[in-house]
Amino acid sequence: MNETLLEAADRALVDGVLARQLRPLAKTITLIESQREDHQMRAQGVLEALLPHSGGAMRVGISGVPGVGKSTFIEALGLYLIEQGLRVAVLAVDPSSSLSGGSILGDKTRMEGLSQCPQAFIRPSPSAGSLGGVAEKTRETLLVCEAAGFDVIIVETVGVGQSETAVANMTDIFCLLQLPNAGDDLQGIKKGIMELADLVVVNKADIDPAATTRAQAQLKTALHMLRPASPNWSPPVLTLSALKKAGIEDFWRTVCDYRTTMTRSGEFEGRRRHQALAWMWELIDAGLRQRFRRHPRVRAELAAISTAVELGESTPAVAAQRLLQHLN
Amino acid sequence: MNETLLEAADRALVDGVLARQLRPLAKTITLIESQREDHQMRAQGVLEALLPHSGGAMRVGISGVPGVGKSTFIEALGLYLIEQGLRVAVLAVDPSSSLSGGSILGDKTRMEGLSQCPQAFIRPSPSAGSLGGVAEKTRETLLVCEAAGFDVIIVETVGVGQSETAVANMTDIFCLLQLPNAGDDLQGIKKGIMELADLVVVNKADIDPAATTRAQAQLKTALHMLRPASPNWSPPVLTLSALKKAGIEDFWRTVCDYRTTMTRSGEFEGRRRHQALAWMWELIDAGLRQRFRRHPRVRAELAAISTAVELGESTPAVAAQRLLQHLN
Repeated sequence: MNETLLEAADRALVDGVLARQLRPLAKTITLIESQREDHQMRAQGVLEALLPHSGGAMRVGISGVPGVGKSTFIEALGLYLIEQGLRVAVLAVDPSSSLSGGSILGDKTRMEGLSQCPQAFIRPSPSAGSLGGVAEKTRETLLVCEAAGFDVIIVETVGVGQSETAVANMTDIFCLLQLPNAGDDLQGIKKGIMELADLVVVNKADIDPAATTRAQAQLKTALHMLRPASPNWSPPVLTLSALKKAGIEDFWRTVCDYRTTMTRSGEFEGRRRHQALAWMWELIDAGLRQRFRRHPRVRAELAAISTAVELGESTPAVAAQRLLQHLN
Repeated sequence: MNETLLEAADRALVDGVLARQLRPLAKTITLIESQREDHQMRAQGVLEALLPHSGGAMRVGISGVPGVGKSTFIEALGLYLIEQGLRVAVLAVDPSSSLSGGSILGDKTRMEGLSQCPQAFIRPSPSAGSLGGVAEKTRETLLVCEAAGFDVIIVETVGVGQSETAVANMTDIFCLLQLPNAGDDLQGIKKGIMELADLVVVNKADIDPAATTRAQAQLKTALHMLRPASPNWSPPVLTLSALKKAGIEDFWRTVCDYRTTMTRSGEFEGRRRHQALAWMWELIDAGLRQRFRRHPRVRAELAAISTAVELGESTPAVAAQRLLQHLN
């Protein structure tokens, strides 16, 4: 889309975002999150105009079960980064927020110090319903925040459902927060989440140093048994206390080391390219499925054919073929 | 498809399979594996006729890295099951076999004792190319073997690529074989594979009993840290020596315990229904993508648009929309 085709109102949004003004930024995100079709078209135009100015931030994903101290950690990290002269945006992916009325980041008082900083921008999870919808809008918001000159974008997610995969797929480094009560209680690590982690952090290390050391050792063992995603990076296990602001500097140094290592090997750019292409294919697949499901004959037959497959009365191949031929 | 519509030759295949004759069984599988379109149509007709007679076997997936002793284990297990009066089929999923000329099960001499038993049927991996193609043909072969009255169907895969997921998605229980040299060498456990395991086996326990005990403890710890797939089953870690035929009976008792537990909770049937439906959707998605990629305007633009997305010159959403609108 050509930038010159933008309406004056949208042109003003683009200029405002690029001028790092918070009101146009918030308005642009609202446009992105809108369900209205005309808003969505306008949002894509604005996004295309902003795209050449995006890509400059470090994208940091943060996950962990409720109670692990995510907001305290993000507040401490955010304030530390601002002290270093950086601007920080905090976004969230929480597909449950439309049901629960906003379980994470809905309440800015959770990060009181950070939310009062002019160098910080905090945006709760969009309440678009499905994970796909929520993740897509957060990914687009991330690009807008980059165009607005934020140096670090933190994307938070709660350790429930498939949202961790979505966040790992839109960030440069995925960090998993853990509690020090290892062993049985570590069952909070869900299937496949440990493998996503580029960095594991044991929070609340001040409460029980002995338990923290045990948890760190156990997590190291578990990570050791998984083949790392990159030949150049073995996910480390750090310990810190977000409440006492101890270990935050060490955390950030590790993130910077990661960035240096991955940039040097070409994996940093490679991951971003791969993420963008995978995202495009995700949207294509979703679009193809949506068209398929809307087809009148598919709609008429899908339920009965699905039941026949479940009951072993039809093979999946014959069922798929029967439904697909309606598209001819 | 109506059975009465089958040609005489295909009717003879169906009758032969149901009469548990090995030649019609092998011919049917060859028909399924054929790339010819007319063969594929015939194969679907034969499969539909056999489908009501399938579902009776215990479907056991076996995976592990090269050198872990998969064929020795499958041979020992197969011979044990035959001693118990059961009939055993051994299939394989190996997407690399078309390249390597058949890396697993290609050579029946690997399971010399078992291959000479009339109660056993061993079939190498189809060499259809892509994992999707290989897995689909193996899944269909599995149904044919069930219609031929086999009591246990073992599906072997090599611990490389995504083939473990494919095998876990077509079997009732997925077993992961491990070597006793734990610790550093356990890096052979790939991302996400540990989570697929319903049962872990440390093979070659006779070589180094101390190392075996350590490996068992470490694997238990690692499994313990992952939330199990079923609330009713925590994947156990067994030790055995396939070479000495020690522990095979214990292995099979555990498989039977699993079946009893999962049947009682309804998860056994639930997993099969879910697998069948997921398989149908996999084929639908593949079919939709194939049609999409074949569309002349998509073919003309896909490469350039993909590059623009990778380079951050176009958003994935705009790119997907642009390509999808060609279907209108």
